[in-house]
Amino acid sequence: MLKPFDDEYFMRKALEEAEKAFEKGEIPVGVVVVINDKIIARGHNLTEMLNDVTAHAEMQAITAAANFLGGKYLTNCTMYVTLEPCQMCAGALYWSQLSKLVFGASDPQRGYRANGVQLHPKTKVVSKVLEEEAGELLKRFFIEKRNLN
Amino acid sequence: MLKPFDDEYFMRKALEEAEKAFEKGEIPVGVVVVINDKIIARGHNLTEMLNDVTAHAEMQAITAAANFLGGKYLTNCTMYVTLEPCQMCAGALYWSQLSKLVFGASDPQRGYRANGVQLHPKTKVVSKVLEEEAGELLKRFFIEKRNLN
Repeated sequence: MLKPFDDEYFMRKALEEAEKAFEKGEIPVGVVVVINDKIIARGHNLTEMLNDVTAHAEMQAITAAANFLGGKYLTNCTMYVTLEPCQMCAGALYWSQLSKLVFGASDPQRGYRANGVQLHPKTKVVSKVLEEEAGELLKRFFIEKRNLN
Repeated sequence: MLKPFDDEYFMRKALEEAEKAFEKGEIPVGVVVVINDKIIARGHNLTEMLNDVTAHAEMQAITAAANFLGGKYLTNCTMYVTLEPCQMCAGALYWSQLSKLVFGASDPQRGYRANGVQLHPKTKVVSKVLEEEAGELLKRFFIEKRNLN
């Protein structure tokens, strides 16, 4: 059966968000939150523009999704994010009781797994979805940044 | 020498913030951020009012302090918080490069230490400042809540 709304479909939407961050000179990480095949929140990293270390894509999307739902828990939601979440974002996802987390590129240094952070026991995790695209975008960003300095 | 602005002084200010949370029916956690003996940000937990799991006292105070400073790093700042930060807040403090963290009550279950989260290597930690007062406030909150349900 054809499944138009699979994990790759939504990860491409998250990558579109990451591209927006890239264009603003932000570390290119993007996210969408989905419920019943519908995107209810989008976000991209804005730490530089907002001068705020808490303005990661995931944090904004958690707040936006909760606003949309009218409740603070993201049960029945799937978050698609182009990079493995950090300690802060994984800690926020823990509190949100997210149902499913799908991420693209791994972050062996700053990712939540390397730092032993726990997601909520109810959260299923799928990794490496469009991993290469997400990783390439990040690599391109840091190469361009290095060449500018 | 008399030191009017010691850790207890500022922790009492954080406790005043926690009392505000209590009065709003929020889990009573309060915070102040201090630079050169001056409070530059205050906050208290607002997760229920804002319907947002990311609205912990510390997260709001990090954003507010960065706003005040006009930069995203909290170097030279001390954060006083009545309860040991959770994974999310400790993760945010990591990114903020906070100089000194002072907390009151420990949180053996949800605190960052039990969950292996790393603060920034530059962050000094002082714990157990007015621990009993902070703990009593939390205990009173949960007893009252239980009696209401």
